[in-house]
Amino acid sequence: MDLTNPRRITRRFAVGCRVWAIPEGYIPGASHGPEPAMTSHETACILNAGPQDAHVEIAVFFKDRDPAGPYRATVPARRTLHLRFNELAEPEPIPRDTDYATLIESDVPIVVQHTRLDSRQAENALMTTMAHPVG
Amino acid sequence: MDLTNPRRITRRFAVGCRVWAIPEGYIPGASHGPEPAMTSHETACILNAGPQDAHVEIAVFFKDRDPAGPYRATVPARRTLHLRFNELAEPEPIPRDTDYATLIESDVPIVVQHTRLDSRQAENALMTTMAHPVG
Amino acid sequence: MDLTNPRRITRRFAVGCRVWAIPEGYIPGASHGPEPAMTSHETACILNAGPQDAHVEIAVFFKDRDPAGPYRATVPARRTLHLRFNELAEPEPIPRDTDYATLIESDVPIVVQHTRLDSRQAENALMTTMAHPVG
Amino acid sequence: MDLTNPRRITRRFAVGCRVWAIPEGYIPGASHGPEPAMTSHETACILNAGPQDAHVEIAVFFKDRDPAGPYRATVPARRTLHLRFNELAEPEPIPRDTDYATLIESDVPIVVQHTRLDSRQAENALMTTMAHPVG
Repeated sequence: MDLTNPRRITRRFAVGCRVWAIPEGYIPGASHGPEPAMTSHETACILNAGPQDAHVEIAVFFKDRDPAGPYRATVPARRTLHLRFNELAEPEPIPRDTDYATLIESDVPIVVQHTRLDSRQAENALMTTMAHPVG
Repeated sequence: MDLTNPRRITRRFAVGCRVWAIPEGYIPGASHGPEPAMTSHETACILNAGPQDAHVEIAVFFKDRDPAGPYRATVPARRTLHLRFNELAEPEPIPRDTDYATLIESDVPIVVQHTRLDSRQAENALMTTMAHPVG
Repeated sequence: MDLTNPRRITRRFAVGCRVWAIPEGYIPGASHGPEPAMTSHETACILNAGPQDAHVEIAVFFKDRDPAGPYRATVPARRTLHLRFNELAEPEPIPRDTDYATLIESDVPIVVQHTRLDSRQAENALMTTMAHPVG
Repeated sequence: MDLTNPRRITRRFAVGCRVWAIPEGYIPGASHGPEPAMTSHETACILNAGPQDAHVEIAVFFKDRDPAGPYRATVPARRTLHLRFNELAEPEPIPRDTDYATLIESDVPIVVQHTRLDSRQAENALMTTMAHPVG
């Protein structure tokens, strides 16, 4: 066994799925503590354990308007990317203090975990969950 | 690829399941901080990425009485709804400081994520998990 | 649709699985805040949405000794039970400040969610996840 | 029923999977509170409910360098191990204040849950999720 060996992952199994859903999304407008580590943020942690780069597209859904996107990112082969939603700029920034949800699609299998750090009050709060694998 | 394109989602895959379970439920009676953002609450974040409106029904289970409901909500096509359990009023409000659990059913596939913000003490605490997909 | 109708759940689907695993377990020995709500605790939130009582057995695994149990509980039909591990007494209490894990088995399908409230420091922290469905 | 009976688990079902993924990883460089309980840490809680020892290998993925590892650990039969990533030393410690992700492989079925305690600010924050079962 040695999962750091790239040939082994290729042959034995695909790690993850191509589409993931995260119904919760909310970027607080206010923060406490030193930036950027303690800035309130939502993150999609993406693992691409495979031998090919992952081209990722994100659609953002809202309560009362059409979806935004697609936002695009690349996760190189055998790398992880912890993508902060508050840093997405193109085609438009995600509005603050607004409920949203995301659908994340990749051209190769990935694994996605969702994290929020909330520092609206003096002490930070954390939450996380695996995203929901779709089809 | 472009998941913001409604035709593409329709043809390629259904996003989610029709029934979800959340065994944890508890609405604290007390809160600290500015309302409504910092009011203690439990939320079911629902993503309907598909092309048809989702008609949702919620059954609430208790420790020592028959289930309450059905509570009803609509999540329009290609929208998200972050439904706060403490705002449910019909057929009856969910009692505070009481253990409960929920079963959420939709007529089209949805994805459900559960979140609790607890502000009973001075600083808020957060937790989240994907709901459990049933059948 | 109406999931509060017991006949409907019986006919249409089983809600959950019979065996669930929770690898994380740790009951802090110290707490802050009013008891029992703010006492540090780990909880298995169990939903039995079906028409028959669930007879539940819990095995507790440790780092350096044989498993303890079985602990027993009953979750009546169409009820939820939020079971605090620090209240389990028979056949032996779970030791404090000790790593453990749990396996939960029922004779009918249930859904299990794991929650920890930690009040070792002045402000409480919360975490939750769905347990892992086994087989 | 009695899941503490080792013969029963062997015959009836395998508990878990052999490979698990955790896309989120971040060990804060700073902590508040008494060590080691309140030291900021990430933990992989591993349950080996089966009758054979689990030989575990961990690969650690980064944003901008090749994966590190394999790190090795053994979880004896019918035991749990709560493995802190900040205590891994061979072949190299995991750097602090750096995004990473992990892939965990075992030669027998296990269940893996991920936990982070963050004590960078005065009060601790907690988060947890089941790892993602792979293949």
